[in-house]
Amino acid sequence: MNGKMKAIVKDRHEAGAVLKKVDIPQITPDDVLIEVWATSICGTDLHMYNWDNWAANRIKIPLTMGHEVAGKIVEVGGRVNGWDVGDYVSIECHDACGRCYQCRTGQAHLCRNYRILGVDFDGVFADYVKAPAGSLWRNRTTLPPETACLQDPVGNAVHATLSQDISTKTVAVMGCGPIGLFSIGVAAAAGAEKIYAIDVNDYRLQIAQKMGAHRAIDAGHSSIVDVIMEDTGHEGVDVLLEMSGNEMGLNNGLKFVKNGGNVALLSLYPNRVSLDLSDDVVFKGLTLKGITGRKMWDTWYKTSALLSSGQVDVSHVITHKFSMERFVEGFEAMNSGESGKVILVP
Amino acid sequence: MNGKMKAIVKDRHEAGAVLKKVDIPQITPDDVLIEVWATSICGTDLHMYNWDNWAANRIKIPLTMGHEVAGKIVEVGGRVNGWDVGDYVSIECHDACGRCYQCRTGQAHLCRNYRILGVDFDGVFADYVKAPAGSLWRNRTTLPPETACLQDPVGNAVHATLSQDISTKTVAVMGCGPIGLFSIGVAAAAGAEKIYAIDVNDYRLQIAQKMGAHRAIDAGHSSIVDVIMEDTGHEGVDVLLEMSGNEMGLNNGLKFVKNGGNVALLSLYPNRVSLDLSDDVVFKGLTLKGITGRKMWDTWYKTSALLSSGQVDVSHVITHKFSMERFVEGFEAMNSGESGKVILVP
Amino acid sequence: MNGKMKAIVKDRHEAGAVLKKVDIPQITPDDVLIEVWATSICGTDLHMYNWDNWAANRIKIPLTMGHEVAGKIVEVGGRVNGWDVGDYVSIECHDACGRCYQCRTGQAHLCRNYRILGVDFDGVFADYVKAPAGSLWRNRTTLPPETACLQDPVGNAVHATLSQDISTKTVAVMGCGPIGLFSIGVAAAAGAEKIYAIDVNDYRLQIAQKMGAHRAIDAGHSSIVDVIMEDTGHEGVDVLLEMSGNEMGLNNGLKFVKNGGNVALLSLYPNRVSLDLSDDVVFKGLTLKGITGRKMWDTWYKTSALLSSGQVDVSHVITHKFSMERFVEGFEAMNSGESGKVILVP
Amino acid sequence: MNGKMKAIVKDRHEAGAVLKKVDIPQITPDDVLIEVWATSICGTDLHMYNWDNWAANRIKIPLTMGHEVAGKIVEVGGRVNGWDVGDYVSIECHDACGRCYQCRTGQAHLCRNYRILGVDFDGVFADYVKAPAGSLWRNRTTLPPETACLQDPVGNAVHATLSQDISTKTVAVMGCGPIGLFSIGVAAAAGAEKIYAIDVNDYRLQIAQKMGAHRAIDAGHSSIVDVIMEDTGHEGVDVLLEMSGNEMGLNNGLKFVKNGGNVALLSLYPNRVSLDLSDDVVFKGLTLKGITGRKMWDTWYKTSALLSSGQVDVSHVITHKFSMERFVEGFEAMNSGESGKVILVP
Repeated sequence: MNGKMKAIVKDRHEAGAVLKKVDIPQITPDDVLIEVWATSICGTDLHMYNWDNWAANRIKIPLTMGHEVAGKIVEVGGRVNGWDVGDYVSIECHDACGRCYQCRTGQAHLCRNYRILGVDFDGVFADYVKAPAGSLWRNRTTLPPETACLQDPVGNAVHATLSQDISTKTVAVMGCGPIGLFSIGVAAAAGAEKIYAIDVNDYRLQIAQKMGAHRAIDAGHSSIVDVIMEDTGHEGVDVLLEMSGNEMGLNNGLKFVKNGGNVALLSLYPNRVSLDLSDDVVFKGLTLKGITGRKMWDTWYKTSALLSSGQVDVSHVITHKFSMERFVEGFEAMNSGESGKVILVP
Repeated sequence: MNGKMKAIVKDRHEAGAVLKKVDIPQITPDDVLIEVWATSICGTDLHMYNWDNWAANRIKIPLTMGHEVAGKIVEVGGRVNGWDVGDYVSIECHDACGRCYQCRTGQAHLCRNYRILGVDFDGVFADYVKAPAGSLWRNRTTLPPETACLQDPVGNAVHATLSQDISTKTVAVMGCGPIGLFSIGVAAAAGAEKIYAIDVNDYRLQIAQKMGAHRAIDAGHSSIVDVIMEDTGHEGVDVLLEMSGNEMGLNNGLKFVKNGGNVALLSLYPNRVSLDLSDDVVFKGLTLKGITGRKMWDTWYKTSALLSSGQVDVSHVITHKFSMERFVEGFEAMNSGESGKVILVP
Repeated sequence: MNGKMKAIVKDRHEAGAVLKKVDIPQITPDDVLIEVWATSICGTDLHMYNWDNWAANRIKIPLTMGHEVAGKIVEVGGRVNGWDVGDYVSIECHDACGRCYQCRTGQAHLCRNYRILGVDFDGVFADYVKAPAGSLWRNRTTLPPETACLQDPVGNAVHATLSQDISTKTVAVMGCGPIGLFSIGVAAAAGAEKIYAIDVNDYRLQIAQKMGAHRAIDAGHSSIVDVIMEDTGHEGVDVLLEMSGNEMGLNNGLKFVKNGGNVALLSLYPNRVSLDLSDDVVFKGLTLKGITGRKMWDTWYKTSALLSSGQVDVSHVITHKFSMERFVEGFEAMNSGESGKVILVP
Repeated sequence: MNGKMKAIVKDRHEAGAVLKKVDIPQITPDDVLIEVWATSICGTDLHMYNWDNWAANRIKIPLTMGHEVAGKIVEVGGRVNGWDVGDYVSIECHDACGRCYQCRTGQAHLCRNYRILGVDFDGVFADYVKAPAGSLWRNRTTLPPETACLQDPVGNAVHATLSQDISTKTVAVMGCGPIGLFSIGVAAAAGAEKIYAIDVNDYRLQIAQKMGAHRAIDAGHSSIVDVIMEDTGHEGVDVLLEMSGNEMGLNNGLKFVKNGGNVALLSLYPNRVSLDLSDDVVFKGLTLKGITGRKMWDTWYKTSALLSSGQVDVSHVITHKFSMERFVEGFEAMNSGESGKVILVP
């Protein structure tokens, strides 16, 4: 398809971005072109918008931002099998190589050579986006676009939460950003007996309760280790979902996991992290599992089921919605802390 | 049984120990009395002998030291079922409570209330030792006492190594103390395709090769990350058994584990440990498993099988043997670093 | 404790039972005596009541029947630790030996030497019951006795259902007797996306829907393979819980499980069962797991959590309640097929 | 590539096959053309050669037979990425669709739509074979072609055996055809404590011992249940690998698996199979796992490692080798029962 389209582009080595007219992407024979119906802003996009150290080191400009999307296929490359114009799809943002050991053993989310949509190549904050056919997910038609575009971040939460044994267990979610909030919903759907939500932001703790947390704890005003140990009869919790990216949060969390318990780590820490490995991990016999991305495609099937069935209701987490023209307001909402997910529509 | 016996006793708040005459222990109705046939010195015993900070904080004197043992039951308490005078036994050194959540769900090695033989109550470096009947393991009669007493430390290695998927995998053992050396033997028996042994002590690296390591790497003279990445075709290893207790060792190890790989942590670190959690654990999707003790009794069955069948030959690791009268030589051998396991016999 | 009590006793080699006065059981030093507060009738009791072939071959008369119970400890044997008069308890009906391989490796429910309460020794349909201390479970005080006595059969359902990966999955429950009905509740609590209940009894199918089944199918009036294949978009279900004890039910079930799916077998079949193993198991890569009893004590913890939290509401399944004097009505309700669980209280 | 080549072709609806000149296959843009270096005869080929009921129902003639192969790529289709002329490869015989649930969740070996090389389309008993690029496996250069072509059947054995916990366990292999024999080698490499080989053919039992079986039992002259129960101290074995395709073999095997044990089923049974499910599976808490094909590509990595490292030595199983011209002798050796694997080279 030829012509111009609008896109939110990172085009300077400084904070901010611009909405501008750019060429509609030209697909290769292995790609499809998607008409964008709804997108959402990820924390990664915010790093790029704010142009922090990570972004400055990683991003090559100019770049169209964004990777969380739902839309419709409008053009199909010549070597693509199984996809047609009109298909309603989302995109797995990791474009895996398909040939490394990880890709060939069911771990494509840990591909050694992956490239990320909206990070390593042009993304979805635009009227159209080009995507490799191998990265497409067929959306259930019952999911509205503003829910379907959230399958990427909900998928992170599903991957982290369902990597653990949740049913009948006690679960603590450390950090109630959007993925923490989604994880609360997933843990509730999977039958956790008790879910503790921990944050320092009261706005987010209120959403946490709507998502199914049985107890919301403000870590700024309570000794969370004491509170949880007392509430669990000094047993501790079975599962810690560490999503705070905060060194003290993680250290406290390890203290209140029970002996033999499990920890999922889905956080990026700004610096190295100091741990009391002997007392908090070795002697307690804990298992720590690093979580990144979503399993292709096991996580997508699970996420799709949870959203379609209504077992996880993301409406509480969607706090803002803007047209792309008003993207600056969207990023400001993200920076304020008083937000869940922000939807952008073309 | 009444009378006196010899015992190696920690009786002062300083380095060293004494061999002296003490009363033969009086059993309760839930105990048995065991005539000691062979024992071995653990790193824990060495901490107590050297009276380091850990020992000074933990140990109440006087205490008969030692917990690795094989011997024969000579007296049986009135409430003990299933054990008889003459039975050839070893002892699981963790006396678990039997009533906590962990004990009641197959995780007695992670009991919240356990007490340790030779640490919290009198141990095995003596002619006789009293043990709770619930801590007894029936030795296969084909195992000589000097092998049977090693089931405790070999069990640590079995628990750590067989907590991982080993067959056809590449395995790195970081730290070739006795448990590292036993782990090499276990990994070889379980069919690892390639085993890397890493240490800074050439004496131990030579034993590592006898135990089945395919390549022994001196971390003092090589960049172990480069060596292993190159040797694995830049894939990295599937499994890291971290037994060095060394912060740099662990950090290097995490670098050469492949994406999606696994780490068993069976080390005590003298201080807190600093890690690059984001890059080395989260993005790589690694799983870290803290290992302590031995599973009761799953690990003992496995250990017994490996030793009885000859699949793991511990004779290469037994470097010294002394009578208890010469125990000082035994501890000095342990302190020298030029030793594997040291056997003490009454 | 001395004196007489009432008990429902099997005392003849024919159908039926009698309520009579018998001696209160005398405990050994390893037992406790429990005052019975509530009991429920199991299918096993019905086999004995009806005196079928199984019962005639297995049961030694006279025998006090029953094994599902909740009550209070009123006497504690001299060698019992950790239990006191006044404790509110239920009983695991399998008295495991504690010394075989299975008992020592966390599989006591598969003990080679177990004896069953109310089958191999006097049971709970009485004012008092004697139980080995090792078989006691401490009830949460929030559970009423008529719920607490159901932890045994709900535990069967929990063991079967949570032996499978349930969250986000499609599950078919074949056979809606009480354990099938409880399993539906457990699968719903654990987040199954869709639950199919299958039976030929409309009364039970109605309860199935109250327990959380999304679709109830009368196998007498529908081709269940066609119905389920069509409803799943010709994928088939992820998990089959086979609780019908019916050869055709199992064969049909295997047809509608998807390739790579899982089957839990918690059924006793009156005769040998003929299967198309090649097409229905080998080529499809199915896994079939035989389920018996409850894991000690992992299943009890889970069951207790599900009942206490209200995640599984058993009130729909309790269809009848009688005093022990009216036990004949209870057994008749069981025989009618128009019943769920029948409660008997002293 | 144009021209003629020789091929072993099934061209009549009766037993036998012919060696004839046929056209070299024309590749599509998604295929490669492979020059065949070595092949081996599978039991499936023998069914076709003998033209039994299965073959008569399944096979469309004319068809070039065979699917076990090693060779060199000589032509690469225009849409193929990652493969070059000269690459040394083998072929996974299941051509999976890549789009069904199973394919998208790491279970491509259970694809609902697969087609089989040498069964559904022309195979490898020829000078050249056409293969979809998605089915290629890159051979380690250290493996000679006559070993590399065996990765398919050894892979079946690896998939079945390593689907179980083998290290330190007792394993019985029921049926010592080639896959049973390979499984013995895999179980030995993975550290089974004791391996029982069972067959009625002394020739095969002798090879079983060379592959690592500790005890070979002639089921025609012994009561295998009694022999194994006695030899295991009446515990039974941990793992049964059922590869006999014989109803009595399976029934006997279930009797001597210990409570809580595991069974892998990699057999095709000529008829329905009658089982005592209640006593032999449900009450014993056994798990039965149907095994078909090889995991793509996890099994291939493991198989490649076992063969390259020499941990499994297949030379004992290769009993015959012929040029393709003498293929009739190869099939006759297969039919005689006095054979292991038969190699055919162009």
